[in-house]
Amino acid sequence: MRVSYLFGKTTKSISADEESVNAKLLIRAGFIAKQLAGVYNYLPLGLRVLGKIQNIIREEMNAIGANEILMPAMTQEESYDKTGRSAMDVLFKFEGQGGAKLVLNPTHEEVVTPLAQKFVFSYQDLPVAVYQIQNKFRNEPRAKSGLLRGREFNMKDLYSFHADETDLDKYYELAKAAYFKIYARLGLGDGRTVLTYASGGVFSKYSHEFQTLAEAGEDTVFLCDKCRVAVNKEIIDEQKTCPVCGGGKLEEKNGIEVGNIFKLKTKFSDAFNFQYKDAAGKEQPVIMGCYGMGPSRVMGTIVEVFHDDKGIIWPEAVAPYRVHLLVLGKEEAVGAEAEKIYKTLIKEGIEVLFDDRERASAGEKLSDADLIGLPYRVIVSAKTLAEKSVEIKKRDAVEAKLVATKSLLKELA
Amino acid sequence: MRVSYLFGKTTKSISADEESVNAKLLIRAGFIAKQLAGVYNYLPLGLRVLGKIQNIIREEMNAIGANEILMPAMTQEESYDKTGRSAMDVLFKFEGQGGAKLVLNPTHEEVVTPLAQKFVFSYQDLPVAVYQIQNKFRNEPRAKSGLLRGREFNMKDLYSFHADETDLDKYYELAKAAYFKIYARLGLGDGRTVLTYASGGVFSKYSHEFQTLAEAGEDTVFLCDKCRVAVNKEIIDEQKTCPVCGGGKLEEKNGIEVGNIFKLKTKFSDAFNFQYKDAAGKEQPVIMGCYGMGPSRVMGTIVEVFHDDKGIIWPEAVAPYRVHLLVLGKEEAVGAEAEKIYKTLIKEGIEVLFDDRERASAGEKLSDADLIGLPYRVIVSAKTLAEKSVEIKKRDAVEAKLVATKSLLKELA
Repeated sequence: MRVSYLFGKTTKSISADEESVNAKLLIRAGFIAKQLAGVYNYLPLGLRVLGKIQNIIREEMNAIGANEILMPAMTQEESYDKTGRSAMDVLFKFEGQGGAKLVLNPTHEEVVTPLAQKFVFSYQDLPVAVYQIQNKFRNEPRAKSGLLRGREFNMKDLYSFHADETDLDKYYELAKAAYFKIYARLGLGDGRTVLTYASGGVFSKYSHEFQTLAEAGEDTVFLCDKCRVAVNKEIIDEQKTCPVCGGGKLEEKNGIEVGNIFKLKTKFSDAFNFQYKDAAGKEQPVIMGCYGMGPSRVMGTIVEVFHDDKGIIWPEAVAPYRVHLLVLGKEEAVGAEAEKIYKTLIKEGIEVLFDDRERASAGEKLSDADLIGLPYRVIVSAKTLAEKSVEIKKRDAVEAKLVATKSLLKELA
Repeated sequence: MRVSYLFGKTTKSISADEESVNAKLLIRAGFIAKQLAGVYNYLPLGLRVLGKIQNIIREEMNAIGANEILMPAMTQEESYDKTGRSAMDVLFKFEGQGGAKLVLNPTHEEVVTPLAQKFVFSYQDLPVAVYQIQNKFRNEPRAKSGLLRGREFNMKDLYSFHADETDLDKYYELAKAAYFKIYARLGLGDGRTVLTYASGGVFSKYSHEFQTLAEAGEDTVFLCDKCRVAVNKEIIDEQKTCPVCGGGKLEEKNGIEVGNIFKLKTKFSDAFNFQYKDAAGKEQPVIMGCYGMGPSRVMGTIVEVFHDDKGIIWPEAVAPYRVHLLVLGKEEAVGAEAEKIYKTLIKEGIEVLFDDRERASAGEKLSDADLIGLPYRVIVSAKTLAEKSVEIKKRDAVEAKLVATKSLLKELA
């Protein structure tokens, strides 16, 4: 993609009420634009990142046998009356034709449970798991954390349905493993994201959060120095020791919740009277689990974790492009060389953003490259051309190096 | 995909208020499930079709240099006050924190205009075009046409911004050509979808609709027997002759509107005071065009056009899978042969739905295959195995034929 054709620009002007590092950097770098508090537009660069995060999540959901579906944002309020959740304060409510009482779903248990009920009748229809990647709505009292806490936000939500708790437990562990695989692929692995024990509500002892340790995190967790699992604030008073080893020192840390998994058991199937016939022909309640992960929140988290004072430092797997190609100087031969390299990279399937702007200074191009934060910066200038070379710098490296142009592909491999 | 793992089932039970052919067939075949009038869940088969339609549209939008972005569903009502459209009766309105007045966007001119205004300052920033594929909301008084008229529906909306009308005219023709390319790829070409002259509002003489001729169409159009362009009902009283040839007989037809394009000119840029500096440094209003096409409505239209009394007949480009592989009979050797063919097709990159259900009868499998409507039905049975063959039938063919198993790939090529 040529920067001269790209919609969205880097900008220095940013509204004063934008407090979070992720929103500030993503707006300044031209990835998102604010609509209202907690509601953002995704510009081309931002949409590419979001799409890459979604695809990594999608692949791992498919790998654990989940079926992708798409449920609506808009639903009858009546479904929330059935589960006793219509008084939830984050629920946006409105009226449709004939005074119909409608809501925007902040989560989809009230939709997916009656939906699965249409297709699951017998033990032979179980287990089954469905997920979607879709926008949700929450009337958050406070929405000043950029992509970390949205009023409209993107969510992957997986729901699993089982004949018994043993089968739920098995799938729960499978989903947990898939979550860790996803964080590793997203660049949030290597101990950065820790399993955190949280309240399980009435039905289970624990639920689990996945907390990415980060100074900017709004959550407080207590991390076991032996097991690297944590306990959240909500249950630390009852759970004074590590729930895995029982020993270990629990150290206070800030975290960003990037996922949570929950054994719902019969909470929602009871509300909708969702039962199946077991092998003996007897009606039994369906056992459920739910598993959430927000691609837009993950995007904000990655920025909170990976940045410096010059801008964002994208992990390779989610960077909107792999290479930022800069042409510095107005000499015709330099421009022609950069064009040639641009076309070669495209031909080789390497995603490249080409800063071909004629009116931007070298200084602007260099500071934009740091701000946007692609993994590799490649410079073509009169100086590099004279050496039949290009200058390559990894975004997180201190030094740039000259590499013979003919070795560029090998260098990027 | 194995039918035994697929979420969603074919069903005979369908709610009595479902009047449209598209909703009836898509629900019976397990592609969608109704949430409320005009709001549907997409099951795995339906989501695959929707995704294929979206991707064809996306490719052709990218080919005319448009940037993909993603705008929110939720917006401040204030933006609609500025354009005088807050009284639109299809607008869903609700309240947020602190009494904030919010709406769900039925279209995005009120969002995209101030968004583009953040990045377009000079004639050098023009032209630029952005599009999104996103869910929209309309509080329709009547929503009984399945996917043809939704209260929550999927939309591709493209907006272009220009320095002058000549440049808009040029892009408008480019978009028009892209639309015809899309309909051809979707299977709605070959004269099935016709350019239809409609009212241009205050600012232009005409806008244009794309109408797919279909008996079930809710719209009435008047088709010129010479030019194959049409005039819509709205303007037929003023426009009594073909707007292209002036002669030709105008014949009344039913159509489904599958797209519309509109020269907005300065209607929205005036409302937001969106101006650019021309080469002489003088402020000029930005000239706009908008171009809509609904992937979910297109999906409903395809079903209205391509079906028979047994079920849907998907065009190859949008079919959820290319091949429906059926194993008939419970013999072990037959099952093993079907498994082998299933794996070969997957390995060769041929999308295949494998009806591996043990509890379904041959009759159920055959009628499900007709109902679901994939392009190729391939049967493995004791009879075909004895002949070292499989039975192949195209969904729209009358006769099936035996083909040597070793020639199957060639047959499907």
